[in-house]
Amino acid sequence: MSELSVNHLLGIKYLKEEDIQLIFETADHFKEVINRSIKKVPSLRDITIANIFFESSTRTKLSFELAEKRLSADVINFSAGQSSVKKGETLIDTVNNILSMKVDMVVIRHPNPGAGIFLSKNVNASIINAGDGAHEHPTQALLDSFSIRERLGSVAGKKVVIVGDILHSRVALSNIFALQLQGAEVKVCGPRTLIPKYIESLGVGVETNLRKALNWCDVANMLRIQKERMDLSYFPSTREYTQQYGLNSAILKSLDKEIVVMHPGPINRGVEITSDVADSGQSIILDQVENGVAIRMAVIYLLASKIKQ
Amino acid sequence: MSELSVNHLLGIKYLKEEDIQLIFETADHFKEVINRSIKKVPSLRDITIANIFFESSTRTKLSFELAEKRLSADVINFSAGQSSVKKGETLIDTVNNILSMKVDMVVIRHPNPGAGIFLSKNVNASIINAGDGAHEHPTQALLDSFSIRERLGSVAGKKVVIVGDILHSRVALSNIFALQLQGAEVKVCGPRTLIPKYIESLGVGVETNLRKALNWCDVANMLRIQKERMDLSYFPSTREYTQQYGLNSAILKSLDKEIVVMHPGPINRGVEITSDVADSGQSIILDQVENGVAIRMAVIYLLASKIKQ
Amino acid sequence: MSELSVNHLLGIKYLKEEDIQLIFETADHFKEVINRSIKKVPSLRDITIANIFFESSTRTKLSFELAEKRLSADVINFSAGQSSVKKGETLIDTVNNILSMKVDMVVIRHPNPGAGIFLSKNVNASIINAGDGAHEHPTQALLDSFSIRERLGSVAGKKVVIVGDILHSRVALSNIFALQLQGAEVKVCGPRTLIPKYIESLGVGVETNLRKALNWCDVANMLRIQKERMDLSYFPSTREYTQQYGLNSAILKSLDKEIVVMHPGPINRGVEITSDVADSGQSIILDQVENGVAIRMAVIYLLASKIKQ
Repeated sequence: MSELSVNHLLGIKYLKEEDIQLIFETADHFKEVINRSIKKVPSLRDITIANIFFESSTRTKLSFELAEKRLSADVINFSAGQSSVKKGETLIDTVNNILSMKVDMVVIRHPNPGAGIFLSKNVNASIINAGDGAHEHPTQALLDSFSIRERLGSVAGKKVVIVGDILHSRVALSNIFALQLQGAEVKVCGPRTLIPKYIESLGVGVETNLRKALNWCDVANMLRIQKERMDLSYFPSTREYTQQYGLNSAILKSLDKEIVVMHPGPINRGVEITSDVADSGQSIILDQVENGVAIRMAVIYLLASKIKQ
Repeated sequence: MSELSVNHLLGIKYLKEEDIQLIFETADHFKEVINRSIKKVPSLRDITIANIFFESSTRTKLSFELAEKRLSADVINFSAGQSSVKKGETLIDTVNNILSMKVDMVVIRHPNPGAGIFLSKNVNASIINAGDGAHEHPTQALLDSFSIRERLGSVAGKKVVIVGDILHSRVALSNIFALQLQGAEVKVCGPRTLIPKYIESLGVGVETNLRKALNWCDVANMLRIQKERMDLSYFPSTREYTQQYGLNSAILKSLDKEIVVMHPGPINRGVEITSDVADSGQSIILDQVENGVAIRMAVIYLLASKIKQ
Repeated sequence: MSELSVNHLLGIKYLKEEDIQLIFETADHFKEVINRSIKKVPSLRDITIANIFFESSTRTKLSFELAEKRLSADVINFSAGQSSVKKGETLIDTVNNILSMKVDMVVIRHPNPGAGIFLSKNVNASIINAGDGAHEHPTQALLDSFSIRERLGSVAGKKVVIVGDILHSRVALSNIFALQLQGAEVKVCGPRTLIPKYIESLGVGVETNLRKALNWCDVANMLRIQKERMDLSYFPSTREYTQQYGLNSAILKSLDKEIVVMHPGPINRGVEITSDVADSGQSIILDQVENGVAIRMAVIYLLASKIKQ
């Protein structure tokens, strides 16, 4: 396989297993190039990419921007408050305006699930979903799997538990799709109120006891707790959450094996994970960030080569 | 004529007819180059351009930025809230500071009419007015005329009606100057309260009845309605405005000819124009956006060649 | 001496006199290159620099960005409100995230004194302090000294008075260190309430009478008055401050010599300095801005050459 089966990256749901392997092999290549301190790859000199963010996202946006610049693409940034989504102009008008300026690829983050899919059907450009509400965040899931593969040799056959607020998490959903596609076993762990009812129909195990979940898994992906949500009545308090689901070195050491610890960032140190665990040798959190740029370079490069044909 | 008669683009008022023709021919060239997918023109490698925006303007700023990057200029962005205009520092201090950093050209948007003119007399750089209060917005008027020329072959002899809030519109004023300079006939249409008293002294016809205006014209330029202004007592309500001045397909079809429909964006779909009209074959709205980049490339290129001499 | 004695620019306090001379000679070179209209120096093609600003600072950020672009470095901008400093994520997490993306150099502005020092001990990148609370702002002090040297031939032996709110000023502290290191004599001048108690222990004279201070000095550096602070009870009112410490042409002309006038910007015209003085031939305010880019190019260039070794 030498090209993606899709023209857009809208969600992991739309990918084949071979697509993921192609992305990983391409990312391997880019990572090696960067590590040899060759920062710029003059691959995409004729491509203009618009980063359109309707939600603020420093980290993801920075990672995409760096990936685009290292591919020598031309980059246009468009940031709009979430408020402007409700204003006079529709999403499609905004994007059509930008595309009329001859843009080839759009990286979009939007609070509405399906925003990227809608765009891909209505505008003439390659679309990368950088997060659509609580739906998907495919590049995050790809970089997570890529980081597991890097640390453990492969994803197939591994047991991964995703811990936290599964209900509101696009990271969780995209990870579930990606891990299963590659032959990993997935469980989620968290308070019942934060686990959606449909999750078991996806073939995902549910475990409300953190210790049991950790004893089962090879990899624990600790999701960020949105403190803003802690006011809601169905939520545990931050203190309760940390007591029951926070990862600390005491629990880690009590396990009979050494598991790999992940976190999509930004970390609430002392809430979902303690500082010593986040900074320990078991943690691959900073690898995830580093791999994010290589994965995004790979995705952009592979989609761009389909445009040029 | 091979160069502009001016060193700045402060307003259409200061241009000769030949200037507009030179800008159009240069824009023709750049548009052709872009359409052959040659995105970068290495013309301005030694030019640094500062985009100084004292009012937020995603679209215009994006268009200028893209034009500058495609000309391979170095781009510096400076955005300041309108509030900062009133703060301690004067406009001239801000700009002098930026110019001390060896900037060759300034693209400025400012809430005060005449801000660009003031600057051009006080600082040593080429100034492009990207909108100064309700005064002028020359590149918008140039791209509008360029789009009419593209669709209808020429601007001379055409009948253009500008519909909406003429009183607060820099787009209207610059368009009137540009259209008349090229030999078009211009009328404005809207509620009496939104048409300035002096407009007839400019040789512009006034028509308060939309149907009559449309029956007269070849081109209708539908201005954006600022919903924020609708609270003011002298204003019609949004509903009243749409009933009397909104453009819909029923009115369009009832005319005895097919007119061209324009809009400077962003559109309030269902207010000043319905979706089906905005997206119809009679609409050149997206052409306007596309042409905006080529026109701005032309203006920047022509002004820069005067700096170098 | 052909390289800096430090790997980071954290404060003037950590520099040797020879470091300053090396920076000045390098800045001389870059200034000459820019003045010959060669805007781009392809020195740092393989260096990625992140500008991380936890406080808004248009001027300093613009100057750094321009310096980086003229050195052909890759530039990543990260701006965070001061509020986000208090949020879940720690400074070190934010920066480590950015560094994981393979960034070589960090320019950081942060409200906490010592933020840059802390970073330099904890992350693997070259750090430039662009202002840490009321502590240091080393590139400002360097460009100030460079501008004095340019106007008066040298800094050694000159008498410099810094006028204003010394207590809250990182500009004052860095300037004191830089001037003394180069053999200048320094006094501060302002209301007693705005001069820190420890200042005399630094070998700095204190003068509360502006006329006496000006009669003594060769150079007067007029600090910006933060109007926001004027509400505080221990502060003089703006009117009182201007009467006692504002620099106007009447005082200047009454002196028996022609002193040099400086200001780090942005100016409150009519508060700490009148317009005619700011714009007079004695003022080198715009030279300071221009020299800021050359000094920052020199600092970045010299630190980058230490990374590459």
